[in-house]
Amino acid sequence: MSKIGVFDSGLGGLTVLKHLIADHPNDDFIYLGDNARVPYGNKSDSTIIKYSEQAVEFLLKNGVNTIVIACNTSSAIALDKLIADFPGINFIGMIRPAAKAAVSISQSKSIGVIGTQATIKSNSYMKEIMNYGDYSVLTKATPLFVPFVESGMIKHKAVDLIIEEYLSEFKGNIDTLILACTHYPFLIEGINNFFENRVNIIDTGYYSSKELVGNKYLKDRKIEYYVTDEPNNFISIAENNLNLKIDNIKTIDLENL
Amino acid sequence: MSKIGVFDSGLGGLTVLKHLIADHPNDDFIYLGDNARVPYGNKSDSTIIKYSEQAVEFLLKNGVNTIVIACNTSSAIALDKLIADFPGINFIGMIRPAAKAAVSISQSKSIGVIGTQATIKSNSYMKEIMNYGDYSVLTKATPLFVPFVESGMIKHKAVDLIIEEYLSEFKGNIDTLILACTHYPFLIEGINNFFENRVNIIDTGYYSSKELVGNKYLKDRKIEYYVTDEPNNFISIAENNLNLKIDNIKTIDLENL
Repeated sequence: MSKIGVFDSGLGGLTVLKHLIADHPNDDFIYLGDNARVPYGNKSDSTIIKYSEQAVEFLLKNGVNTIVIACNTSSAIALDKLIADFPGINFIGMIRPAAKAAVSISQSKSIGVIGTQATIKSNSYMKEIMNYGDYSVLTKATPLFVPFVESGMIKHKAVDLIIEEYLSEFKGNIDTLILACTHYPFLIEGINNFFENRVNIIDTGYYSSKELVGNKYLKDRKIEYYVTDEPNNFISIAENNLNLKIDNIKTIDLENL
Repeated sequence: MSKIGVFDSGLGGLTVLKHLIADHPNDDFIYLGDNARVPYGNKSDSTIIKYSEQAVEFLLKNGVNTIVIACNTSSAIALDKLIADFPGINFIGMIRPAAKAAVSISQSKSIGVIGTQATIKSNSYMKEIMNYGDYSVLTKATPLFVPFVESGMIKHKAVDLIIEEYLSEFKGNIDTLILACTHYPFLIEGINNFFENRVNIIDTGYYSSKELVGNKYLKDRKIEYYVTDEPNNFISIAENNLNLKIDNIKTIDLENL
């Protein structure tokens, strides 16, 4: 009977929600995109934790008991604290499922990780992958990707140039790349083109969605969207790039978070 | 004897500080760049006001009585409130001096304004220019410029493509363009190239610096820098692009703001 809560700093979590909707057809979802405060990835740890706690509290007030942290920055910085602070709530983060998938897919044992400054600095993926043995892990912060996605500049020559600028050092050195930010699957076409489709791309939402135990009973499901700033940009980018139909969206005041 | 306070969301205010240092050789300056929370321009009004008030309080604790709001977003959204909340403090904003300069320079009476989403949405420049009579004012939010500057990608083919994407609609329609964000002078070379040097470019720092009444007595002056996140990026971008020498910089904890 209960809904699944999903949150992200902005649009990125929609790439996770898309997998959740497809994998779990009998569940209700409530999505919170904190687009008034995006990006999280260049904020301090204490700010990222505060914002994540506010998002969790908002979702709990709206009747969820499972929360998908559809943001790698929040997963890297805040997940342990959220689990400690909200006992009884089932949290699904982005990092462990994606690290496990990368390890099982990589043949060369050389894995690349791109994410926000906070995610990369946390070394979360590095630590998780090292649990599986001896891997070469190359990491890089790619901070311009989030503003590009949030401003809707997704298929543009400028994006291809930034992809080249950021990813050149990976070429020839990895066989698997983790997109350790849920905004990055919006740019997957350009990233695949850059690597001429020769690198396995790990979409963190795809693997984390498999962690959710969904509802088995058929029902008419409902998907609600909330944002903290005006929704027009959010709706048009989601509909044009992810084929999501967003017809139930409200803006909530930051003061009410 | 007192210092001049200067603040911005990040690096942008340094383009203002550069003019202040040159125009007022006998004054001490203290600069605060809130790089842990940059950008301000896509935040809500209440958040922009809160961050601006915290910056002002920090500068006042450090002994200033004049504050240059070296951020167009703060000037547009928070200046009136700051003046009301901090009586006796002399505030210098970015908007009025730049609007006056644009009006006096434009021959065609067609003025362009580019800035953050918050600055453009506020219509502050529009209202200010309209005080001078009948002008055609074209405005556009150019939200990717700040992340480009903050990440140090200042001279790059991708920047030129974004400039073209954002500014094409101005070409042939204006003779004067206000860079209504103090980050944008970092990109002035690319902007001038795009307009083939045929458009007057208004750098808001240049004109606001003239509003300051400086100290007349020669002294050994001191310039202090504070940031809210790690300073390496800040220092290298400032030194490489503005020839500022930054040898007195500290990181302050956001909790102490």
